[in-house]
Amino acid sequence: MAKDKQFVTEITPQGEDFSRWYIDVIKKADLMDYSPVRGCIVFKPDGFEIWEHIQEEMNRRFKETGHRNAYFPMFIPESFFQKEKDHIEGFNPELPWVTEAGGDQLEERLAIRPTSETMIGHMYSKWIQSYRDLPVLINQWANVVRWEKRTLPFIRTSEFLWQEGHTAHENETEAREETMQMLEIYRDFVEGYLAIPVITGQKTPSERFAGAVDTYSIEAMMKDGRAVQAGTSHYLGTKFAVAFEIQYLSRDNVLEYVHTTSWGTSTRLIGSMIMVHGDDRGLALPPKVAPTQVIMIPIGPPKTRDAVIGRTDELFKELKSAGIRVRVDDRADVTPGWKFNEYEMRGVPVRLELGPRDMENGVCVLVSRISGEKKVIQQENLVEEVQAMLEQVHNEMFERALKFREDHFYSVDTLDEMKASMEEKRGFALAGWCGSEECESKVKEETGATSRNIPFNPAENKQVCICCGKPAEHTVVFAKAY
Amino acid sequence: MAKDKQFVTEITPQGEDFSRWYIDVIKKADLMDYSPVRGCIVFKPDGFEIWEHIQEEMNRRFKETGHRNAYFPMFIPESFFQKEKDHIEGFNPELPWVTEAGGDQLEERLAIRPTSETMIGHMYSKWIQSYRDLPVLINQWANVVRWEKRTLPFIRTSEFLWQEGHTAHENETEAREETMQMLEIYRDFVEGYLAIPVITGQKTPSERFAGAVDTYSIEAMMKDGRAVQAGTSHYLGTKFAVAFEIQYLSRDNVLEYVHTTSWGTSTRLIGSMIMVHGDDRGLALPPKVAPTQVIMIPIGPPKTRDAVIGRTDELFKELKSAGIRVRVDDRADVTPGWKFNEYEMRGVPVRLELGPRDMENGVCVLVSRISGEKKVIQQENLVEEVQAMLEQVHNEMFERALKFREDHFYSVDTLDEMKASMEEKRGFALAGWCGSEECESKVKEETGATSRNIPFNPAENKQVCICCGKPAEHTVVFAKAY
Repeated sequence: MAKDKQFVTEITPQGEDFSRWYIDVIKKADLMDYSPVRGCIVFKPDGFEIWEHIQEEMNRRFKETGHRNAYFPMFIPESFFQKEKDHIEGFNPELPWVTEAGGDQLEERLAIRPTSETMIGHMYSKWIQSYRDLPVLINQWANVVRWEKRTLPFIRTSEFLWQEGHTAHENETEAREETMQMLEIYRDFVEGYLAIPVITGQKTPSERFAGAVDTYSIEAMMKDGRAVQAGTSHYLGTKFAVAFEIQYLSRDNVLEYVHTTSWGTSTRLIGSMIMVHGDDRGLALPPKVAPTQVIMIPIGPPKTRDAVIGRTDELFKELKSAGIRVRVDDRADVTPGWKFNEYEMRGVPVRLELGPRDMENGVCVLVSRISGEKKVIQQENLVEEVQAMLEQVHNEMFERALKFREDHFYSVDTLDEMKASMEEKRGFALAGWCGSEECESKVKEETGATSRNIPFNPAENKQVCICCGKPAEHTVVFAKAY
Repeated sequence: MAKDKQFVTEITPQGEDFSRWYIDVIKKADLMDYSPVRGCIVFKPDGFEIWEHIQEEMNRRFKETGHRNAYFPMFIPESFFQKEKDHIEGFNPELPWVTEAGGDQLEERLAIRPTSETMIGHMYSKWIQSYRDLPVLINQWANVVRWEKRTLPFIRTSEFLWQEGHTAHENETEAREETMQMLEIYRDFVEGYLAIPVITGQKTPSERFAGAVDTYSIEAMMKDGRAVQAGTSHYLGTKFAVAFEIQYLSRDNVLEYVHTTSWGTSTRLIGSMIMVHGDDRGLALPPKVAPTQVIMIPIGPPKTRDAVIGRTDELFKELKSAGIRVRVDDRADVTPGWKFNEYEMRGVPVRLELGPRDMENGVCVLVSRISGEKKVIQQENLVEEVQAMLEQVHNEMFERALKFREDHFYSVDTLDEMKASMEEKRGFALAGWCGSEECESKVKEETGATSRNIPFNPAENKQVCICCGKPAEHTVVFAKAY
C-alpha cells in the first residue's frame, strides 16, 4: 500500500493547454471538486481556507474604515427587480426562481440574489430618515447565484461566495470618495496580500454594473494573457435611491435622495491567484493566504530518523507558536524527493529540510517555492528567518507577476496589432478609443478583446481611436477576459 | 432636534407579555428588522456582530479538535432527498424549490438545503476509498432554509445561518465519541461563552433528527419557562453511508460502510441568549459576545466637559489597545441618565462613568449591567479592573440564569402536576416515562409539553411513567418548547 516512489504530476503543461493545466492543478491540489449541480463547485478545506484568510484580512480593512457586517435575506421578490430597469435587464437572464415552498405555489416568485442592491435598497429606505442616519456603511459576506451558461471553477460558478458593500451618503462627493476608497482597499489588498499586480481604472459604459452611474475595477493578467476583473466598486448615484425611495431630511431640512455605492470581490480571487502564480510544477500560493505556509520534511537514513523527527517537532512548535501555519510530513513510505514535488505542486511557499548533518551543525535548509533558492539558516534564528523567507517569496511572486504583465502589455495602433496581441502574443493591449459603443463592439468582433478599463495611470496617452481613427477620448486597456 | 431628555423604553414588561417583550427589545436594541420576504429577517450590524463573535470562538474550538471548514452547494437535486427515507419525510414539508433558472424550466427541481447530509454524503462517497482517508472532519458555515409556518426572529426563521459539522469514521465507537465530543464543545461554549446553563441529554426517538440513529441536545430555559434546543449532535450510524454508498476498504481489506455524525448550532443561539438574560430594562448581553463590552460616559457640568472628554479619550485608548470592545458616548444633547438607560436597554455589560471629581482623584466608576453594582476603581488599574468586571458580569449572568432554572424546575408525578408546571409555574418538569410513543403523545396533548431530552445527569431518577404508571424506562425533561 506504499505510495509510489515516483512522483507523477499528471499536470498538463501550461504551454500545451492552459485551461487543462488549470483544472488539473485545482483538482490535484485538492482545492475543489465538481458537484452534481450544474456550475456549482465544492470548496474543499484547502480551497476554503484560502477564502477564510481573504475574509479575515478584508474584514480587518473594512472595519478599520468604519464598515460593519450585516446579513440580508437571499430571497428577493420579483417586484423588487422591476424597480430599477437597468438592473433587471442586466440580471434577469441569470436568475434562478423559487416558485414553490412548504408545499405551496408562491404567489410571487422569489429570485435568489445575484447581488443585493434591491433588498438592501428596500431596507435602507426604512432605516434612513435624516442626515443624522448617514452615512450607512454596511458590508455583507454571502453566497450569490448567477445561472451562468459557461462556468469555470472559482472564476465563474452558478453559486459563489463574495462580499458586497453597500453604503449610503448625503451627497455625491462623499459617495464618490467611498467608491474610490474601496477600490484602493481592493488594490492594496490584492497586490499586498495576494501578490497580484492590478490595473485600476474606470469601466466603459458597456461594461458597467447594471444600474451603476460609474464602475471602477481592478484588472489582473493571468498567465495565458487573459484578464480577470478581480474587484469592482460602483458609484450608483441616486438610481437605487429613486427606485427604492431612500430619502432623508437634509441639514437644510429638505427631503433629498441619498447617493449610494456598492463594491464587491468574490471567490474568483482564488481562481485569479492560481492563474497568475501557478506554473508547470503546480500551484504557487501567496504566503499570506496559504493554508500551509511552511512544510517541514525530515530527511536522512533510518538510523537517525527518530532523532531528526524529534528535533523537527521541536522546531515545529517554535514556528507554530509564532503564528506560522506549518506542517510536518514525516511519512516513512514516501521519499523526500516525492514530498518535495508534492508540496511544490500544492504551492506551499516555503519548504524546510532537516537532516542529521544539519542537526549536528544547528542549521536547517529553507527553500523558496518561487525562486528555488536554498538557504542554510541557523536554528537559533528560525522564526525570523522563516518570516523573512515568507516575505521574500511574497515579493518574488509579485515581481514575477509584474514582469510577466509588463512583458505581455502592448501599445497598439491598429486592429491587426491588437489581434496579434491577443493571439500570438497573448496579453493586454493599450489603445485609443473615441468613446463610441460602435467602435468598442467592432474591436470585440474583430479581435475578441473587450475593454477592461480606462486606466488611471496609463503608460502612455493614445491620441486616436484604434477603430475609426478619430481623436481618442480615452486610452483603454483591452484584453480577452474570463 | 435634541433627543428627548426623558428616556422611554417602550418595552412591554416580561410579566405582561413575554413575546411582545422579546419583539420590543430586539427591535429597539437594533439587532434585527423584518424583511419583505415571509419569515426572513435582516441581521442588523449589532445582531450580526454577536454572530461573528460566536463564529470566531466556535471556529477556534472546531479547529483545535481537528476539524476544517469547507463549502458545499446550497442547491440539492430532488433525487438526493429520496435516498434516505426518514430524511425526506422529515424535511419535505419545509423545502423551497427552484424550478426555473436562467430563463429555462429545470429538468429536475432543486431544493435549497435545509441541512446538507445528502449533498455531503454524495461528495464523501467520491472522496472516501480507504481507511487511510478517514476520519473526515468537516464543518460548514452556511445559510439554510426551512419554510416554517410560524416564525420568530432568530429562533425560527425561514432562512437562517448556522454551522453544520459532518464527519465520517471507520467504526461506531469513533463516530459516537465524535458525537459526544461535539455535544460537550457546545455545552462548554454555551455555558462558558453565552452564560446560558444547559441540560445535556439524549432525544427521545420522536424528537430525533430525521435520519439519525441517536440525537443528543443541549436544552436551555428561557425566562418564560419555555425551552430552546440550543444545539444538537447526531450519530447517524451507517444510514447515510448506505443511502449514498460511502464505502471504504478497511484495515482488513474488507469493503465497509463509514459511520457518520452531524452536529449543528444556529443563529437561534442569539434568540436564546436574549430570552435567557434580558429583563424589563432591555437586553443583557454576555460580555464575551457583546458588540460593545464597555460604554464610557463622561459626566459633569459644561465647564469641565472638554477636560473630562479629553481624559475619557485617553482611557478609551487604553481599553481599546487591550482588545476590549469599548465605545464613548460624549453627546451633549442627551443627559447622562438618558444614556444610562439607553445602554442598559442595549445590554452593554459594563458602564464606565467619569466626572470631574473622579478625574481629580484618579478614579472612575464601573457599573455592572446585571447586579447594578457600582465600583470605584483606580485609573491606573483600568484594564485589569474592567476585565475583572466583565468576568464578574459573565458569572452574575450565569448564576442568575442557573438560579432561575432551578427555581423553575419541577419534579412531577402526575399529568396535572406537569400541567401546572407548564402553566402557572412556567418551567421544566422532570418525569418518568415508560418509553412508549403513546404516552409521550398523550403528555403533549394534555399538557402542551414535549420531551426535551433524557438528561445525562437528572437530579432524581423517576420510577414510574407519568402517563401509564408502568415502570419508567427513562427520566425525561419535559417542557413547552420554542
